[in-house]
Amino acid sequence: MSELTTNRLSVYLRCLTELESQGIRTVSSQSLAEQFHLNAAQIRKDLAYFGEFGVRGVGYYVRDLKRHLRQILGLDRRLRVAILGAGNLGFALADYPGFRQEGFEIAALFDNQREKVGQQSRSGVPILDIADLRKVVKRDGVSIAVLAVPGSSAQQVADLAVASGIKAILNFSPGSLQVPDDVKVKGVDLTVSLESLSFFLAHGDVAEQTE
Amino acid sequence: MSELTTNRLSVYLRCLTELESQGIRTVSSQSLAEQFHLNAAQIRKDLAYFGEFGVRGVGYYVRDLKRHLRQILGLDRRLRVAILGAGNLGFALADYPGFRQEGFEIAALFDNQREKVGQQSRSGVPILDIADLRKVVKRDGVSIAVLAVPGSSAQQVADLAVASGIKAILNFSPGSLQVPDDVKVKGVDLTVSLESLSFFLAHGDVAEQTE
Repeated sequence: MSELTTNRLSVYLRCLTELESQGIRTVSSQSLAEQFHLNAAQIRKDLAYFGEFGVRGVGYYVRDLKRHLRQILGLDRRLRVAILGAGNLGFALADYPGFRQEGFEIAALFDNQREKVGQQSRSGVPILDIADLRKVVKRDGVSIAVLAVPGSSAQQVADLAVASGIKAILNFSPGSLQVPDDVKVKGVDLTVSLESLSFFLAHGDVAEQTE
Repeated sequence: MSELTTNRLSVYLRCLTELESQGIRTVSSQSLAEQFHLNAAQIRKDLAYFGEFGVRGVGYYVRDLKRHLRQILGLDRRLRVAILGAGNLGFALADYPGFRQEGFEIAALFDNQREKVGQQSRSGVPILDIADLRKVVKRDGVSIAVLAVPGSSAQQVADLAVASGIKAILNFSPGSLQVPDDVKVKGVDLTVSLESLSFFLAHGDVAEQTE
């Protein structure tokens, strides 16, 4: 199971949610692929890894497959998230509507600037003192830290998260992080998306979604 | 050429930049794969599509391959970007260090709130009136719009971007957009990354980067 596979499972989940909202109850891998520009063989292969979800002559039951995917992705329990760094990016992530929709709960923003502590984001996420991170992680069962601090303090804040018992870090800060083997870091590089558009602008209609 | 391929080319470019900063001048696909948890066969296949960049017994010359990748990705010219929506996300993106590093130039933030117009982001990106979008796009040669507005106004703002001559949109707003065939939209769903961490937390060491 690679990260690319889990990314695709996430995408399938998003597609099924959209189909469900349209009242669609069954879908074939072929139809799923055509509607959302995916690869039907890849869909079948990815899902087959986890079990027999398809029904001959029917395809997949949208609601069932959605439930299975949420289980596979570990989304059947509530995951609490701490956002480290209450700058513009931290605030934007605290109020990002998608996180809540998919069952993630933003427990708090953390910062080391005294004047920010005690305030809250637009959607009501409180800003706490980063000195209290360990206490809050234990008390509230926070399992994921989102790093939204400048690159210069990223490693130091990551160390603090690890020392607080965090096992998964989503890193928006530039550069790579050193963490113990049992901690998973996922870096988000927003530049990759812009470069994909740059490619399109350079090559025009050569770019097609065939994978 | 799929989006997944261009995403991988972006990743290779990032790895080569890191190697170059370490003073490394040549690298084999095998070594590149090992250092950055990539797939060597995939690297060779992706690059072979664009030409013969490898040298027998040497591998790739880091600086040359980097230059080729920048050309392939259309990064050898300066691309101007307009950010539509001067909320927290818009500000965070305007000051995101990676965009500038890779040669993208954030021309301006645009908003329809009078009190924001005339202000600027921390790094000095000016906030302009969205009513002036068309004029600025033409005058400054803006080619990419980044959509950072609430989902409820996303389509309307996308229409405005298209009418202004924009051919590439990076969409951070929830939901899909209707655009003409000659306009490319890339949606960024930050939830996908969190779900990949959720999978790791649910399955622990089953998750490995093998692709």
